[in-house]
Amino acid sequence: MKSALSYLLAARQCEIDELDRLAHTSELVGAVARFTHALQRERGISNIFLASRGERFAPQRLEQVAACETLRSEIAARFDALDLEANRVRASARLFNRIAVFLHGIEGLAELRAGIATHSLAPRGATEAYSRLIAGALAVVFEAADSAGDPEISRALVAMFNFMQGKEFAGQERAHGAAVFTSGRIDAPGQREWRHLIEQQQHCFKVFADFSDPGVVAAEHTSQDDKTLAQIERLRRLGWAMGAEPVDALLIESWYECCTHRIDAMRIIEDLLGANLRWLCESKIEEARAALRNQQAILKTLDLGSGGSRPAPLGLRLERSVLEMVKEQSSRLQAMSDELETVRAALNERKVVERAKGLLMAHRQLSEEEAYKSLRQTAMNQKRRLVDVAEAVLSMADILPGGR
Amino acid sequence: MKSALSYLLAARQCEIDELDRLAHTSELVGAVARFTHALQRERGISNIFLASRGERFAPQRLEQVAACETLRSEIAARFDALDLEANRVRASARLFNRIAVFLHGIEGLAELRAGIATHSLAPRGATEAYSRLIAGALAVVFEAADSAGDPEISRALVAMFNFMQGKEFAGQERAHGAAVFTSGRIDAPGQREWRHLIEQQQHCFKVFADFSDPGVVAAEHTSQDDKTLAQIERLRRLGWAMGAEPVDALLIESWYECCTHRIDAMRIIEDLLGANLRWLCESKIEEARAALRNQQAILKTLDLGSGGSRPAPLGLRLERSVLEMVKEQSSRLQAMSDELETVRAALNERKVVERAKGLLMAHRQLSEEEAYKSLRQTAMNQKRRLVDVAEAVLSMADILPGGR
Repeated sequence: MKSALSYLLAARQCEIDELDRLAHTSELVGAVARFTHALQRERGISNIFLASRGERFAPQRLEQVAACETLRSEIAARFDALDLEANRVRASARLFNRIAVFLHGIEGLAELRAGIATHSLAPRGATEAYSRLIAGALAVVFEAADSAGDPEISRALVAMFNFMQGKEFAGQERAHGAAVFTSGRIDAPGQREWRHLIEQQQHCFKVFADFSDPGVVAAEHTSQDDKTLAQIERLRRLGWAMGAEPVDALLIESWYECCTHRIDAMRIIEDLLGANLRWLCESKIEEARAALRNQQAILKTLDLGSGGSRPAPLGLRLERSVLEMVKEQSSRLQAMSDELETVRAALNERKVVERAKGLLMAHRQLSEEEAYKSLRQTAMNQKRRLVDVAEAVLSMADILPGGR
Repeated sequence: MKSALSYLLAARQCEIDELDRLAHTSELVGAVARFTHALQRERGISNIFLASRGERFAPQRLEQVAACETLRSEIAARFDALDLEANRVRASARLFNRIAVFLHGIEGLAELRAGIATHSLAPRGATEAYSRLIAGALAVVFEAADSAGDPEISRALVAMFNFMQGKEFAGQERAHGAAVFTSGRIDAPGQREWRHLIEQQQHCFKVFADFSDPGVVAAEHTSQDDKTLAQIERLRRLGWAMGAEPVDALLIESWYECCTHRIDAMRIIEDLLGANLRWLCESKIEEARAALRNQQAILKTLDLGSGGSRPAPLGLRLERSVLEMVKEQSSRLQAMSDELETVRAALNERKVVERAKGLLMAHRQLSEEEAYKSLRQTAMNQKRRLVDVAEAVLSMADILPGGR
């Protein structure tokens, strides 16, 4: 019969396998973050290109499309390197499915760009198409965080996800502001939308700061230059009152530049987060392997002493040390599992919103985007948090008509 | 670049791998249940053997030890068949660690039996040693339920765990009653303990009924014969008032027989639950494989049509069907994940108790058994549920002295 010790070792090996998988996933997340940044830039440039009827940013757009394609091949190499047949990377059906959704979106990128080049798409439609694609990228990172079996790595992934999500809200704010400055006016819903985008950024960056390595948080504080931030605040104020004064044609370029400057600074932090994540995986793998070697050494001593010739006191001592190892491992795994639960709680809000969206899609035959907008609209009108509205929708599930 | 479709297929393959793993785990759980039953019988017989100073059940004990050893080799074969090197079965470090604890317990069985044969153990000490071993077996089944990635199978494992746990409380009640009838008296703590054991059984069987297949629940209802149950109730009443009347020497045997009759009937239900679990795994694997074949067939059609020669309408149709598959899979995985969360909530009470135990062990330097007894004592004294006392302990964590 296999001894307790071989299962003890197998348990440790399970942990190492999970860490190996997380190291792969972290590499992937880093590549997804870089590609997402390029997509965000391409969205911003395409928006101005379309809004100006091709007068502005035509060469920049082609340049950015090329840069984006380079990163696309980088990301393709990463995804291809994932050996889908090997069991070791097969850990989460949900993660793979999120990747499938994201890749499906990327496959439609050529068509989207063709529509932009021929001006057959409105700026709003193009922006929404890019945003959907970016949402798919974020969903991959979210799932990576949610499916991670190690609390420290899950924590780092939660920080990464929230930073990327906050940056995406900053990108959406850039597009929203650009539209306001281009049209030269703003209405009440446009103001609410703007405030919502600012609040969402603050929320995401707060979660990032709570979950991230203190070194990265400190780097984030110093990465943003105060002049740009002050200028953004000034432009927000001007945009907010748009229509009251005559339009200044330079405002849009100033707004675009400041926002881009701020978002580009965020890119550096994303890279730091990615590097931190990889370092964390590596050092945890090293640590776990050392612990395994240590346990294996004890197994060897036990084998040497076995076969009847083992002197009783030694046998007893080893017996005790196996029991101690098992107990130590039990309480370590228990603590990890508790910690993991705490970390994952930070992902709950988004899950509640996703569920409410799914419910609205099923019950009211809405698209995903319509469902989200309907939730957000209600939240903005009632001045409630999105997650509270989502909770309310879920609690009404039984009395909603129709459905699955 | 790998297409969305290959990740879609890989996601499905992940599900199949998880189901394969669960089929192995379920076989293991069935074997653990059979072995646990034999240990429960051995505990009961050894208890009476020791209490009667070897006058009663001496041959039965040897017979039961032999039966137990046969099942032990069966379970050893199952555990050995688990290829610890193969990645496919390496899914949960916690499950493997629980198995290590359990196997470590089994390794001490020979010593325990030697202590019983030479009467160097008190009945209470022997019973506690067996109960610890059985608790280790139950922890394996609990972890199997908690780590299962499929909600239906997790549900069946929750039913199995609660049934086994309820049966174990019935076994403890048998031992408790036997001790009362042997000594001929009962005190207030003894009465409280008895009531607690009855209430715990009822709670476990209720959860079993809520989570199990209706067919098994119906079989459970008809499996118990009313005469035995009536006799158990009568003996509980007599035991409750023990000491008021002169002791009837036959009471202990009648009690032991009725309880054993009842527990043996439960064994049949455990077998049904095990068979149901295996059937569930097999049919889910078959279902998932059929879905994968279906998706692979579509991939083939897509390959045939590719290479530039694919007519546009067909390409578009396939493009749409891939998107539909991805969306369908997303919402199916989401629904599974939600359902899994609901099922796992049923395991929360025990987790809270485990955590509180761990806290007491760390802060008051108690053994696991002492920590559990201290929680249970408080619950019985204050007439509160065990889980409520555990919650209270956890909420006091910050103000407890000492600790890890």
